[in-house]
Amino acid sequence: MGRYELEYPKDATNLVKRHGERANNERGVATGVYALEKIHSLINGTQLLHVSFNPPGSPFPVTLPMIGQMGSFDRPSASLGDPLDLYIHGYVSARMFNVGRDAGAEGVPVCIAASHVDGLVLAVSAFNHSYNYRSAVLFGHAYLVTDEAEKLYAMELITDSVVPQRWRNSRLPPTGAELQSTSLLRIKIASGSAKFRDGGVVDDKHDLENEDALNSVWTGVVPIWSTMGEPIPSGHNRVDLPKYASEFFDEFSKDNKELALSAASKQPGA
Amino acid sequence: MGRYELEYPKDATNLVKRHGERANNERGVATGVYALEKIHSLINGTQLLHVSFNPPGSPFPVTLPMIGQMGSFDRPSASLGDPLDLYIHGYVSARMFNVGRDAGAEGVPVCIAASHVDGLVLAVSAFNHSYNYRSAVLFGHAYLVTDEAEKLYAMELITDSVVPQRWRNSRLPPTGAELQSTSLLRIKIASGSAKFRDGGVVDDKHDLENEDALNSVWTGVVPIWSTMGEPIPSGHNRVDLPKYASEFFDEFSKDNKELALSAASKQPGA
Repeated sequence: MGRYELEYPKDATNLVKRHGERANNERGVATGVYALEKIHSLINGTQLLHVSFNPPGSPFPVTLPMIGQMGSFDRPSASLGDPLDLYIHGYVSARMFNVGRDAGAEGVPVCIAASHVDGLVLAVSAFNHSYNYRSAVLFGHAYLVTDEAEKLYAMELITDSVVPQRWRNSRLPPTGAELQSTSLLRIKIASGSAKFRDGGVVDDKHDLENEDALNSVWTGVVPIWSTMGEPIPSGHNRVDLPKYASEFFDEFSKDNKELALSAASKQPGA
Repeated sequence: MGRYELEYPKDATNLVKRHGERANNERGVATGVYALEKIHSLINGTQLLHVSFNPPGSPFPVTLPMIGQMGSFDRPSASLGDPLDLYIHGYVSARMFNVGRDAGAEGVPVCIAASHVDGLVLAVSAFNHSYNYRSAVLFGHAYLVTDEAEKLYAMELITDSVVPQRWRNSRLPPTGAELQSTSLLRIKIASGSAKFRDGGVVDDKHDLENEDALNSVWTGVVPIWSTMGEPIPSGHNRVDLPKYASEFFDEFSKDNKELALSAASKQPGA
């Protein structure tokens, strides 16, 4: 779409409150973001999404960890900043897919959350402790994918989100039984937002003037990131670890580490 | 409680389906667990919980990342296998706390999810790919904590979940403004369950007999864990990193790595 940076419109559902209850607190402002590209990137970079829905007859929403990826079956070349659907796959989610089957044309209202912790922020006062984090939330309606070509598109998208290029480097084509037994949901997005916190410790003025506290409390940021270890071949593996895989495993740890270190060194709210 | 291992009763809300839709699939059985100790340990070992609730007037559930910890204000010596409340704290959650204020005596129905990815499981067929993971879900009713002693109990519990012993090693006592501006929720648990998958690759028989596939597709497990990097002191820090902190940071990375490696080496479903 090029020229404009598309945003989800702000409404009562997705509005990010900036510490409404404690506007005078200086522990660091959490920043709200509505740009599609930023939100979709966070969703796509998250190994487990948390998908919530309301099962009929229960007072409680249900939240399930699932694997998902943003994409467009109608326009596969769409970029991350374009309007996209979210495809999700879950062997963990029989209940939700059952709801999806029942809901038919209306779709199941769902909320999808993606969150990363980038570091501990340890201040003088316990009340000024925080995390550096990145989080995104999407709202939308879930539909069961029934078209076979769309199923294949979504399975490739999701498989390649686990390891890029993995789909074409696994056994193809899928068997009829595999396609039949796999349930996928397409979520038509209604709105979304992202929220993040980065930077160093933000302490209150009275704590920065408290000699006793400054002389006794360690303050700083501890970066945190997700890392991949040495791959462990299966008992039936006969193949050397291919380059597409080893490069991704190395980059995964390296990129996450860089993100955590860069978050720690930023000015809060910058 | 000692003698018995308490479990949450199975009902329609928390029942873990064991791949109901694909019982013949052999990719590895996800195991359902109802023991309080296992579920509470997973919740307490998770840096960001995903808390879902239904805001009045919206069709969508809302899921927020929050910090929480299981505990018992009435019996602080209770162990992880005992019935406990979940205390949560969220500057990210003004909307939920507002709902909490309105809901009064009834409490707000919530779902809390905690999930960890322990590894990628890469099989011959894309459809037999999986994650090693540990996940827990709790259902309950949220109430605003108004009693000052209970607020202090919960803040200590939650602060020490970020870094053990941090509360007593930060600036104490809290100021009146800090206590007043901090919103905490106590969640009375109604039910819960956990689900996990560990072990190696599980491929279908026809793939294990497919010479072309075996000679071309790398299969195995890639362990994944969360790690903490070198602590970065704040600009106003004057103190050497204390032992309670450095030991925890080291153990965090070491323990998570061991969990991921041990999950990778287990027999699936064992």
